[in-house]
Amino acid sequence: MQQRVTMHDVARAAGVSSATVSYVLSGKRPVTEETRRSVQSAIDRLGFSLNPVARSLRTGRSMMVALIVPDISNPFYALLARSLQDELRGREYHVVVCNTGAQLAEEQALLREAMQQRFAGVIMTPFRLSTQAFEALRSAAVPVVVSADIAFGEVDLVTPDAEDAVREAIRHVADSGRRRIGVVAGPRDATGGDPRLDRIRTHAAAAGLRVSQEHIVHGEHTRAAGAQGFRHLMRSRRPPEAVLCVNDVTAVGAMDMADRLGLDIPGDVALVGHDDIDFATLVRPRLTTIRYPAHEVGRIAALLLLEQIDGRSDPRTAYVSADFVARAST
Amino acid sequence: MQQRVTMHDVARAAGVSSATVSYVLSGKRPVTEETRRSVQSAIDRLGFSLNPVARSLRTGRSMMVALIVPDISNPFYALLARSLQDELRGREYHVVVCNTGAQLAEEQALLREAMQQRFAGVIMTPFRLSTQAFEALRSAAVPVVVSADIAFGEVDLVTPDAEDAVREAIRHVADSGRRRIGVVAGPRDATGGDPRLDRIRTHAAAAGLRVSQEHIVHGEHTRAAGAQGFRHLMRSRRPPEAVLCVNDVTAVGAMDMADRLGLDIPGDVALVGHDDIDFATLVRPRLTTIRYPAHEVGRIAALLLLEQIDGRSDPRTAYVSADFVARAST
Repeated sequence: MQQRVTMHDVARAAGVSSATVSYVLSGKRPVTEETRRSVQSAIDRLGFSLNPVARSLRTGRSMMVALIVPDISNPFYALLARSLQDELRGREYHVVVCNTGAQLAEEQALLREAMQQRFAGVIMTPFRLSTQAFEALRSAAVPVVVSADIAFGEVDLVTPDAEDAVREAIRHVADSGRRRIGVVAGPRDATGGDPRLDRIRTHAAAAGLRVSQEHIVHGEHTRAAGAQGFRHLMRSRRPPEAVLCVNDVTAVGAMDMADRLGLDIPGDVALVGHDDIDFATLVRPRLTTIRYPAHEVGRIAALLLLEQIDGRSDPRTAYVSADFVARAST
Repeated sequence: MQQRVTMHDVARAAGVSSATVSYVLSGKRPVTEETRRSVQSAIDRLGFSLNPVARSLRTGRSMMVALIVPDISNPFYALLARSLQDELRGREYHVVVCNTGAQLAEEQALLREAMQQRFAGVIMTPFRLSTQAFEALRSAAVPVVVSADIAFGEVDLVTPDAEDAVREAIRHVADSGRRRIGVVAGPRDATGGDPRLDRIRTHAAAAGLRVSQEHIVHGEHTRAAGAQGFRHLMRSRRPPEAVLCVNDVTAVGAMDMADRLGLDIPGDVALVGHDDIDFATLVRPRLTTIRYPAHEVGRIAALLLLEQIDGRSDPRTAYVSADFVARAST
C-alpha cells in the first residue's frame, strides 16, 4: 500500500508551515488567497487526505452519524436511512444503522454507546425511552434529532403534521356510510401514548362517528401484530366497518388476516394505513393510506443535524406534512 | 456528564501498573490469574470502558464494518443489513450502510473511503467493479466479504447455490405447457455478465425449451426497469409464455406493467421472481420465486468476516442454498 501523505509533506511542497496547512483546511484562521491556492494545489498534487482517525481524536468526534430505529427491515426506516445517507454524504458523514427492536433496554444501550463512541450525531426514533433520555447527550453537546410523533424534551424533532390528512380520511370513510371505526393502534406502553390513535378519535368525534373502546387494539408496529389485532377487531360482537392502522406494515398484516378470514376489503370492511411505503401499492386492493414521506423525513432530519453540527444549539421542531391518499381498500 | 474513567484509574484501583491493565485487556502478554481478576474487578467497579477513538488509533482500525450495497431501500439489502447487525452486535461492531446506486464511480469511491476510514471490515455487493478491485484491501489486510453471484478475486464470497432451484422452476413452467421463456435480466455491463441469466438458459435448454435472443431484456435491478423490460418482452412478435426475472423487485415492476397492459398473470403469462422478499407474498397473485434468503446471507457474511478479523487469511466461498417456491403467478 502506498505511504500516507502527511500534512508536513503538503507544507513542504507548498513552502508554508504545517500550521498554515492546518488553517487552510480548518478555516480557523484567515490565510491569503495566494497561500490557500498553493496549499490546495499541493494537496491535489500529492493526493493528501486527512487521516479520519487522527481527525476524530483531535475533534473528539467521529465522522459517523448513528441512525437508531426499531427495525431497518421496515421499509419506512430503510427509505429514511437511504435519504439520510444521500444528504449526509456530501459532508462526508457516514450513517451507522442500529436496530432497537422497539425494546427499551436496546434503546438505552444504543444511546449510551452512541455517546461513548463519540458519534458526530444521533438520529433516532425512540419508542419506550423516557422523554428525558436525551439530556445526557445534550449536556455532552452531541447533536440529536428525534423523528417521532411526540416531543422528547429539548431536542430537535421531525414530526408529522397529519391533522388535515386524518380529518380527510375520517370524512372519506364516513361518506361511504361507515359508522363504526376500529383502530389497530401502537403499543400501550409507548412513550407519550399513541398520538395517531388520539388524532383518529378526535376527528372521528368531530364527524359524529364513534370509536368504542372494544374497537381499539394495541400492538407492535409489525405485520404479525397487525394480523392479530385485525382478527381481534373482526371477532368483536359488532365488528367495525372501517379499520385505521398505525402504519402500512400493520395494515398489510390486517390484509393477510382478511384473506384468512374470507373477508372482502373494502366490501366487508374498509382499511386505511399510514406512511405510504411501497407495500401500499403492492397489495391488492391497493391500500388507502396517510402518506408520511420517509424520504422527506430523512432529508429534514439530515438538515437539522447538520445545522447543529455547524453550531446551532436551540432546539427546533420541523413538521412534515402528511396527506390522505384514497385507493382501493376503502 | 460523569468523568471518563481512565486506564490509569483502573491500574491504581487494582494496585498494578497501567501496562498490566493494558495486557489484561489486550491479552498480548500473559498475566497471572490473580492479577487478571483484580484488574477485572476494578474495571467492573469503576465502570471502565475503552475510549473507542483511542482504541482505534492504537489498533489502526475502527469498530465499524462497512456494508456497501446498491440500495438499502431494496428489501433484500435491508434484511441483509438487519441480519448482519444482529450477528456483529455481540462483538460490538457497528454496521455503516453505504449505497452505490450500482454506479461504478460510487463503488470505487466507497471502497477507497472504507480503506481510508480504517474500517474493521467491508461487506459488499459489487455490480460494476473489476474482479481485481479488492486487491488493495487485501494487501492492507482489511477483512472483506463479497456477496454476489460471481467471485471477485481472492476474497471471501457468499453466493447462491441455485442450480436445483432454477432447474425446478423451468420444469414447473414447462409442465404447465409453456414453451417460450422470456428473461428480465440484469444490466448488460455488470461484472462477470449475468449468472442468473446463464443458469436459466442452461436449464431451459436441458428441458428442451428455448430462450430466444429477442426474449431477453437487460436492465437495472429496479421496479421501474422491471416494468420497462416486461413491456418490451410482451410487445415482441411472439411474446414469451413465461417470464423469469432477475429479482423480485423487477418481477413486481413486471406485475405493475401487466396491470397496465391488461394482461392476466398467470393466464396470459407466467411470472417467476428471485429472492423471496416480503414483496413476493404481498402482490396478487402471490409471486412464484426462487428463495435466496437475505437473512441467511447476512448471517454467513458476518461469520466469515469475524473469522477474518480473528486471523483467518485464506479466502473461503460459502454457498447459500436457493429454493424454488411455487405460488400463484405461475
